[in-house]
Amino acid sequence: MMRMEKSLLMIPGPTPIPPQVAAAMTQPMLNHRGEAFSALFAEVSTKLQKVFRTAQPVYIFPGAGSGGWEAALVNTLNPGDAVLSVSIGDFGERWHKVAVQLGFAVERLRFEPGRAADPERIAERLAEDRERRIKAVLIQHNETSTGVTNDVRAIARAVREHGALLMVDSVSGLGALPLEMDEWGLDVVLTGAQKALMCPPGLSIIAFSERARAAAEKSAMPKFYWDLKAAHSSLQKWQTPYTPAISLLHALKAALELLETETLEGSWARHRLMGEMCRAGVKAMGLRLLAVDERTASNSVTAVVAPVDPKRLRKVAREQFGVELAGGQGDLADQIFRIGHLGYVVPGDVLQALAATEMALAQLGVDVQIGRAVAAAQEVWMNHVRG
Amino acid sequence: MMRMEKSLLMIPGPTPIPPQVAAAMTQPMLNHRGEAFSALFAEVSTKLQKVFRTAQPVYIFPGAGSGGWEAALVNTLNPGDAVLSVSIGDFGERWHKVAVQLGFAVERLRFEPGRAADPERIAERLAEDRERRIKAVLIQHNETSTGVTNDVRAIARAVREHGALLMVDSVSGLGALPLEMDEWGLDVVLTGAQKALMCPPGLSIIAFSERARAAAEKSAMPKFYWDLKAAHSSLQKWQTPYTPAISLLHALKAALELLETETLEGSWARHRLMGEMCRAGVKAMGLRLLAVDERTASNSVTAVVAPVDPKRLRKVAREQFGVELAGGQGDLADQIFRIGHLGYVVPGDVLQALAATEMALAQLGVDVQIGRAVAAAQEVWMNHVRG
Repeated sequence: MMRMEKSLLMIPGPTPIPPQVAAAMTQPMLNHRGEAFSALFAEVSTKLQKVFRTAQPVYIFPGAGSGGWEAALVNTLNPGDAVLSVSIGDFGERWHKVAVQLGFAVERLRFEPGRAADPERIAERLAEDRERRIKAVLIQHNETSTGVTNDVRAIARAVREHGALLMVDSVSGLGALPLEMDEWGLDVVLTGAQKALMCPPGLSIIAFSERARAAAEKSAMPKFYWDLKAAHSSLQKWQTPYTPAISLLHALKAALELLETETLEGSWARHRLMGEMCRAGVKAMGLRLLAVDERTASNSVTAVVAPVDPKRLRKVAREQFGVELAGGQGDLADQIFRIGHLGYVVPGDVLQALAATEMALAQLGVDVQIGRAVAAAQEVWMNHVRG
Repeated sequence: MMRMEKSLLMIPGPTPIPPQVAAAMTQPMLNHRGEAFSALFAEVSTKLQKVFRTAQPVYIFPGAGSGGWEAALVNTLNPGDAVLSVSIGDFGERWHKVAVQLGFAVERLRFEPGRAADPERIAERLAEDRERRIKAVLIQHNETSTGVTNDVRAIARAVREHGALLMVDSVSGLGALPLEMDEWGLDVVLTGAQKALMCPPGLSIIAFSERARAAAEKSAMPKFYWDLKAAHSSLQKWQTPYTPAISLLHALKAALELLETETLEGSWARHRLMGEMCRAGVKAMGLRLLAVDERTASNSVTAVVAPVDPKRLRKVAREQFGVELAGGQGDLADQIFRIGHLGYVVPGDVLQALAATEMALAQLGVDVQIGRAVAAAQEVWMNHVRG
């Protein structure tokens, strides 16, 4: 029997898009060199500053979030510069490889999957660098592959003391998890539109601190597409150096309006609640979080050690119970599954995801008591509502 | 704190619309006297025949489902005709009033709220009518206000024996609950697009048996808008007597395609599963169904006796837990609440609705054990999946 096509997308991006966002993309095409475009671009860029918590300009490139990795590096560094890449999972590894591929002298500081980066260890490593050879530190705000959030504020303190630029990949963090670009002193913050910003993929969004923009003035790295100076020069006229992804910008405007209505603090609180509900549910099923220290567990995605083959689990959850869960990446592919709870996702969706997970596990012979996960998450929600 | 605007609409219509249906309405406007319209109208009308299970033409009027009540009566009857209106709830009462207002000699056979119509009682009443004065019997397939489904097949047998026309309001039934217009011998079946047909409101859809169409030839009731003969004549050219609701027809085409993919039997099975899940959950909360005999309880909407003020319950469910439940109508307004589970709704949505109901009750001081309702519904779902 065919099922009605309606499933709940609970992966850590791309995330579900609100109907207002979908509707926004149906607006007529416009001249990207005209006033209507400039008004749109100005509005979106200005709204983004509030989400980044920065007074600096925010640049929007048509592209994947990963493009921000390259943009961060090629704009602020010089050929052969030393870079400390801090990796706590697959996305840390990927950014590391990008830096290697671009010819930088990359040193990797790696933490085992499930652990957050230790700010002390970073501070110690930087303290050893008395000649200040390290020009940049790369880190994930939230490591999507392991469901762990780094203490970016503490890491920023250590990096500030040393003087290197701190570059933060907040693809699965920005909008969902607290981040204060200016207050914490972050030099580069990059994200994509398809996570907590509730848009379809296709926009790479990045902001640079004054320090980073000063470094960009002296950067001798060859670049065209991701050239900050060209983007900055165009931005003065609310323009872009090449054709912008117009419909996606309409989408982003609608999404940012939704976020403004909720308030950014409201979104952070919602994601914290969903993270707490999800973890309570997972533990009630007798499962183990990949996050070793629960205080570092992500509020935008929960990684869970799978008691059965995660591919089978996800297949049953999807085909029989209509919930799309995520698998693990890299070495974790056979060990974990992930529940995404960021963007246009609400606490009720977390209940559905937990119920589906529980039923799928039962179908696969795991000894779970049906209903316990949802009940545990309901209790968290009720306590939240009661304040 | 503002919440993210995303709530689950669990009322018995209007029901949620699938994104494919929403997208279909964004198609460019077209000339309703051109070939493109005729092709659209032919396709939708033909697909509807399969949902009505009839070889007769199906007529689509721009209008509310309630317009079908008038269309059924003014096309097939004559001024002053005797009509037996069978009422098991608020919608039965409303159709009754329409018949009175149009000047027919209406006799009402009423059953108390929560009960289905007794086919025996209808048969007995018709048997008394030896002169065959009663020209039509009016009945709801599914009484939306009480969550009770009538045994239309058995009632049809009784009416066929007498010879009156049987007119069936299947606004909250068609597409969700089994109905066989030709096989059961129903003379008029009417519905709206905004229930199991997963469209926005605005289309009144009605089919007439050969008997009913023959009666229409002799009907002397004054009419214009709802004139079957005009509609029928236009339909021969896949046209309409006046401007059709074009965007809604695009929507209906998309919805019927979804229904075809699922299959009509698949939709019936999904609604039966959702009804069973909802009732299991409601009973696990210790609440009482309004349906006196559970075998007559509706699989498209569940009416529940509220242990607290239903308005307060619905407010908490909506504002704190993001689920929109329905209230009672008429005399039941202070006594019941209703959970709609028809149309573009899946079993996971029923879990969310039950969780929200349970938490809202707990917030209002009702002694419910958090998680029991969802667990009971999960068990039903798992048994269904296991076959």
